[in-house]
Amino acid sequence: MKEFDFIKQYLVNRQSQDGQLVLGIGDDAAIIRPDTSHDIHISSDMLIGGRHFFTDVSAADLAYKVLAVNLSDMAAMGATPKWALLSVAVPQLQEDWVQDFCDSLFALADEYGVNIIGGDTTQGPWAFNVTIMGQTPQGLGLRRDAAQVGDDIWVTGRLGLACAALFDHWQEVQLDMDVFAECEAARLRPRPRVALGQHLVSLAHAAQDVSDGFAQDLAHILKASGVGAVINVDALPTLPALKHHEQWQHWVCAGGDDYELVFTAPKHQRQAILQAAQTTQTAVSLVGVITEQTDLMLLDSDGEAVTLEQWGFDHFE
Amino acid sequence: MKEFDFIKQYLVNRQSQDGQLVLGIGDDAAIIRPDTSHDIHISSDMLIGGRHFFTDVSAADLAYKVLAVNLSDMAAMGATPKWALLSVAVPQLQEDWVQDFCDSLFALADEYGVNIIGGDTTQGPWAFNVTIMGQTPQGLGLRRDAAQVGDDIWVTGRLGLACAALFDHWQEVQLDMDVFAECEAARLRPRPRVALGQHLVSLAHAAQDVSDGFAQDLAHILKASGVGAVINVDALPTLPALKHHEQWQHWVCAGGDDYELVFTAPKHQRQAILQAAQTTQTAVSLVGVITEQTDLMLLDSDGEAVTLEQWGFDHFE
Repeated sequence: MKEFDFIKQYLVNRQSQDGQLVLGIGDDAAIIRPDTSHDIHISSDMLIGGRHFFTDVSAADLAYKVLAVNLSDMAAMGATPKWALLSVAVPQLQEDWVQDFCDSLFALADEYGVNIIGGDTTQGPWAFNVTIMGQTPQGLGLRRDAAQVGDDIWVTGRLGLACAALFDHWQEVQLDMDVFAECEAARLRPRPRVALGQHLVSLAHAAQDVSDGFAQDLAHILKASGVGAVINVDALPTLPALKHHEQWQHWVCAGGDDYELVFTAPKHQRQAILQAAQTTQTAVSLVGVITEQTDLMLLDSDGEAVTLEQWGFDHFE
Repeated sequence: MKEFDFIKQYLVNRQSQDGQLVLGIGDDAAIIRPDTSHDIHISSDMLIGGRHFFTDVSAADLAYKVLAVNLSDMAAMGATPKWALLSVAVPQLQEDWVQDFCDSLFALADEYGVNIIGGDTTQGPWAFNVTIMGQTPQGLGLRRDAAQVGDDIWVTGRLGLACAALFDHWQEVQLDMDVFAECEAARLRPRPRVALGQHLVSLAHAAQDVSDGFAQDLAHILKASGVGAVINVDALPTLPALKHHEQWQHWVCAGGDDYELVFTAPKHQRQAILQAAQTTQTAVSLVGVITEQTDLMLLDSDGEAVTLEQWGFDHFE
């Protein structure tokens, strides 16, 4: 199968109409005409076989995750995803694989209103890069550096499931079959919190997605904002069955791969946040408070400090 | 060396001021505030070790090329490059290597006025992805689908040098030492034709950069525009010494990796194009004409058809 057939057959033909898209796939670059009242948000994530995914993953699950992790970055900015460019390096292009990959990719792209407007394909090791672009009304993006002392700290969904599934894959733990199934689904098909993120631009102060581990990702907010936090680890949302395993605090606080949002908001927005969560059918949990003292304190419900062997995922450790 | 130290030390600190950049590296996404009178051009290129470059390439040469091939896409649109996101997967991060890589990257970025505003770093095989963004005044981008019957066909610089250097690396040919040096320099350090491209938005009809081979890349213009072309292969610019080798026509017509521009323009713009070439110190050659008959005919100076074994580079052949 030739590269250009691949591009033409699966990407050009699937491109959707878009009032701001002047020129899509098939030239040296795509052209967009920005909406003058909006800021454009841009982010890139690279996923490598054997590191970010198992190379025997199904084409459909792989395509989903490659795009979902990027949608999660837009969610963390409160941005509406608009356009994406996909670069693909795979050892070979097999037609069935390409078909499954593209069907899954476009299903997710369509669901979130994203237009795939460009990219690159080449033979190589398993490597995928997506650059995603979205927009917010000018000045309304959710930044990391905007947390304020006294803010509530919230987290969406449930933490630790993806990491627990990985520990099972690595045979470091054996989860019950139904628990594994739920964790594996969370690992393979995280739900980008885009709808809630869009509501949060007018409610929250700071936000970030949980990709490298809750504690580490929250620490980015704290550092950027010059503040600290106290977290009630027992209040962190997870699958209850995971608490039967001694590693549960590690999975929840430092596991990563969750693609939930952690965000801070003033206390007077609690009701509005719960309302936005209900409107967007997104679970949210109140898990801590922003403090003046620039430490991140992880406490259990008895007020005892929780210690972690590792704070999160460093891509070069 | 930790990922976050790498990002902070080398990228955040080098970020330049930019009136349209609201938020740079260090959040879930960068934010730009578009200029309302301009279109935004976006393109991604992925380079894989062992395929697009030798993995023993110097860090400085590698960084140069990773960005240059993307600048070339902006040149082919006539766009002014503005922002880039760099994703890097390398087996390990060594401080000397990172220093050399970043020094070279930012030297080229500064020369072309590009701000590195985001990206990703991960351990993995040698894989680099750059997404580049640039702008033109609204509606003025150089597209592939705008060639018109009777247009002159022009090409910048010289073709075939990079491929000749590769043939020498592969020991399929032995070039004289000084010839090899010139070809290797062209392969490692192509000059993106950005300045000329900016002039061409008001002079040329269609343009494209020569990355996969002149004939194949020109064929993209022809197909998109529904036209054909006659090319005088002997008029294609190259290093004269290469013509002593029987493979020269292949190198020039189908070699690829040239990162020159091929563009079409009405005959009455000849003088203006030569003037723009002089202003931007870019060599240009008139090499053929756009025809109504939708074939690409490669002829020598005697009018004999030139046949090529292969028309260009397919990334999956």
